[in-house]
Amino acid sequence: MTSAELYTAYKTKMQKIADVKYASAVLQWDQETYLPPKGNDFRGRQIATLSEIAHQQFTDQKTGDLLNALTERDDLNLLEKRNVERSLEDYTRNKKLTSDFVRKMSETVNRSYHAWAKAGTENCFATFQQPLDELIQLKKQEADMLGYEQHPYNALMDEYDKGLTVATVDKIFSDLKPQLLDLLGFIKNKPQVDDSFLRQYFKREDQWNFGMEILKRMGFDFEAGRQDISLHPFTTNFNNSDVRVTTRVDTHDFGNMTWSCIHEGGHALYEQGLPGEQYGLPLGEYCSLSIHESQSRVWENCIGRGLPFWQHNFPLLQSLFPKQTEGLTINNFYRSINKVAPSLIRTEADELTYHFHVMIRYEIEKMLIEGTIATKDIPAFWNEHYQQYLGVTVPDDKRGCLQDIHWSHGSFGYFATYSLGSMYAAQMYAAIEKKNPSIGEEISIGNNTGILNWLKENIYRHGRYFSSGGLCRQATGEELQSTYFINYATEKYTQIYSG
Amino acid sequence: MTSAELYTAYKTKMQKIADVKYASAVLQWDQETYLPPKGNDFRGRQIATLSEIAHQQFTDQKTGDLLNALTERDDLNLLEKRNVERSLEDYTRNKKLTSDFVRKMSETVNRSYHAWAKAGTENCFATFQQPLDELIQLKKQEADMLGYEQHPYNALMDEYDKGLTVATVDKIFSDLKPQLLDLLGFIKNKPQVDDSFLRQYFKREDQWNFGMEILKRMGFDFEAGRQDISLHPFTTNFNNSDVRVTTRVDTHDFGNMTWSCIHEGGHALYEQGLPGEQYGLPLGEYCSLSIHESQSRVWENCIGRGLPFWQHNFPLLQSLFPKQTEGLTINNFYRSINKVAPSLIRTEADELTYHFHVMIRYEIEKMLIEGTIATKDIPAFWNEHYQQYLGVTVPDDKRGCLQDIHWSHGSFGYFATYSLGSMYAAQMYAAIEKKNPSIGEEISIGNNTGILNWLKENIYRHGRYFSSGGLCRQATGEELQSTYFINYATEKYTQIYSG
Repeated sequence: MTSAELYTAYKTKMQKIADVKYASAVLQWDQETYLPPKGNDFRGRQIATLSEIAHQQFTDQKTGDLLNALTERDDLNLLEKRNVERSLEDYTRNKKLTSDFVRKMSETVNRSYHAWAKAGTENCFATFQQPLDELIQLKKQEADMLGYEQHPYNALMDEYDKGLTVATVDKIFSDLKPQLLDLLGFIKNKPQVDDSFLRQYFKREDQWNFGMEILKRMGFDFEAGRQDISLHPFTTNFNNSDVRVTTRVDTHDFGNMTWSCIHEGGHALYEQGLPGEQYGLPLGEYCSLSIHESQSRVWENCIGRGLPFWQHNFPLLQSLFPKQTEGLTINNFYRSINKVAPSLIRTEADELTYHFHVMIRYEIEKMLIEGTIATKDIPAFWNEHYQQYLGVTVPDDKRGCLQDIHWSHGSFGYFATYSLGSMYAAQMYAAIEKKNPSIGEEISIGNNTGILNWLKENIYRHGRYFSSGGLCRQATGEELQSTYFINYATEKYTQIYSG
Repeated sequence: MTSAELYTAYKTKMQKIADVKYASAVLQWDQETYLPPKGNDFRGRQIATLSEIAHQQFTDQKTGDLLNALTERDDLNLLEKRNVERSLEDYTRNKKLTSDFVRKMSETVNRSYHAWAKAGTENCFATFQQPLDELIQLKKQEADMLGYEQHPYNALMDEYDKGLTVATVDKIFSDLKPQLLDLLGFIKNKPQVDDSFLRQYFKREDQWNFGMEILKRMGFDFEAGRQDISLHPFTTNFNNSDVRVTTRVDTHDFGNMTWSCIHEGGHALYEQGLPGEQYGLPLGEYCSLSIHESQSRVWENCIGRGLPFWQHNFPLLQSLFPKQTEGLTINNFYRSINKVAPSLIRTEADELTYHFHVMIRYEIEKMLIEGTIATKDIPAFWNEHYQQYLGVTVPDDKRGCLQDIHWSHGSFGYFATYSLGSMYAAQMYAAIEKKNPSIGEEISIGNNTGILNWLKENIYRHGRYFSSGGLCRQATGEELQSTYFINYATEKYTQIYSG
């Protein structure tokens, strides 16, 4: 076979596997948006069957033979070469896990999830402890099967951000922590901003229309995507021409829907910007969860909680909500949407205290995997650190260590990417400002071309060509560092809390 | 292996194939309801891949081995035995078509569909003629590969209603035609009923709410299904606990949405009533398209265009539409929804003239497959018979032989099931009335228990246990005959048009 024929065979196989995976994604999207309650059981097995088929097809010997044969060819172009390399990495990783292990993990996750849900209802961590223990034993085993250097947790983080290590995350967090604590200390001694505006009654339909218009103004292509309602907002995609976001509406919390739209909108712009001709291949996929999160955070925070963005969008807010915005200045609105106050729930945290939520979880996970903390000691550790870092007293497990679904899904190694996303976002936004110092002015007149072109050129179009680190160097000229986030945060919040 | 083990292996295999098929159905449902326009191309290939996987898994040798092994066991129970028999029939049928042939058919259908859509836009049959010709050659070849007795068209009708023959349909239609023509002659000489009520403005949301309430009142379980909007109403299901109907709303045609809800609701009640424990197996599937259509027609016409149904539901209509119903008596409403008037479009026809639309298509298909008419002669034949049977002049191909999508999909052998559905419905309704003479009174006070119990007991719970004919004998004690429909129609319309 010629290299071209071989590559076509590989591409065809990968695209058929993608068809199955994305079909499963459609079923999951429907499960969160439109599924009638009694349909849930059968839906579970339909999704499981598709996952099994996709896994079997990807890990079968033919895939390996194709990839190995292609690796020996020297007449592939750079993009083709990179696709083959990435697929071989995935294949090698997948092959390390036996199908017995995969089935056992899936069963344990299923049990854990139900135990977690029950524990939440009962507001009692003990109900979740036993299956969590089993899960952690399996995750340790997984780390051993996958192999790692230095720390077993590296093997697990690798799933979400290839090459990410404990050393890197520890460094970022140890840089971040003291400076964030300083900034929070400064804020604590200043008068609190007034955000009562956000707690007024905002009609459901008007909020929805506002969110849809904001998405449109960001650049979301509604011919290649849609927004629906779900309990927890998320973004999913079935190809770059069908990207779906969801949101929720709280009639007494204006921020809830608005920044979920902007956050998911950032994820969605990334997915819509991925190269469609690479459908089913690594270069058609997002780089890593850290980079994906950077795309939501750059919009949600750097842009969407910034003054320029609202210089353009505040009039729309006023026209849709004349009563609620009566007497409200744009400056007070800007301050209200940037209120910093330690709280119990990660997903409701402001952009500063947020990182302590992540750091605490990261520490616990790392210790669980290295075996330096027992599951029974999680609540105490959790509550102690919430007191220490955030000064909040955790009243119960539900608002404490049971709040997030991730552990019950077996997603260990995920949390750090949330914070890294913010770090990458700040570093990228600084690079954009450096390249184009008038970017704020552009945004303030509703011109997002500068932002979008930079993101397309430096992030979207590369797919998985680079690792997170490589993409960061390519896009910003530097390694990831927390300085940019700290500078951004210090400048912004010093100004807000001195006003 | 014990028979129980063998049967479990068969069941597991069939259920996994069902998972894939139903996943494809979810993708198709989404395509008709929520898919953003640019997502269409990738969606097409995702559906094609799932179909290919389901077909491969069903026709692989392992399926045949399992089925043949099970056929030799004599310790299966009656239901298990019947499942195996039906699956073997399907398997044998599927194996007769080579994968080369299946791919060629799929490509030709794809070409034909686009040509048909183009022909519609251009309002010119000639654009569709060439691909239609190719398709018919393939369908003839298909009939030969499948094998048949007496008439090649039998092999094609068998796909939609196992065992249905030209002899049976010809007999039904030749009984029906003269009597229907008599009845239409009678109506033609009477003053026409006034249906101007239906053409007033009815607000979209109010119509939607009315339709949802009607579905609920019929017995549709909204915990196990939902209704959405699509261009063409349809029913689909992903298991008996997730059955979805769609409808459309025309603000100046009250009947359009209302009877589409009732029609699709009838299909949906059948799907919700199928035995869930037989998921993925023949006994968990509907009997045939004729019987499926009987379930929509018995609700749409026998019940939903009857006086008792509206004795219960007319007050709801009045309360939602006080202005439009001002001065309208229930009797005049009843007459308006049963207006008989020949027209050009099948899907908009009344329940009497409808059958001529079907008969003309049936005749043409039969002749195309036996080779006694050329595709180029279709428009002339069509227009001549519309004139002859219905007395309407077909102004162009779009409102003539191009109106239905079926041929472009390669669905030859389907149309007769539409009329048979009405015949079965009338015969079933007569059986229900015979068993329970006060069924009309029950319906008139909103009590559908009698209807639903009869349908559950005699139709729903059997799945594919019986053939259409067998089910009809079991449920009504007789072979299918057009007498019941003719009696029903004569009594009803004589009364309406004598009033």
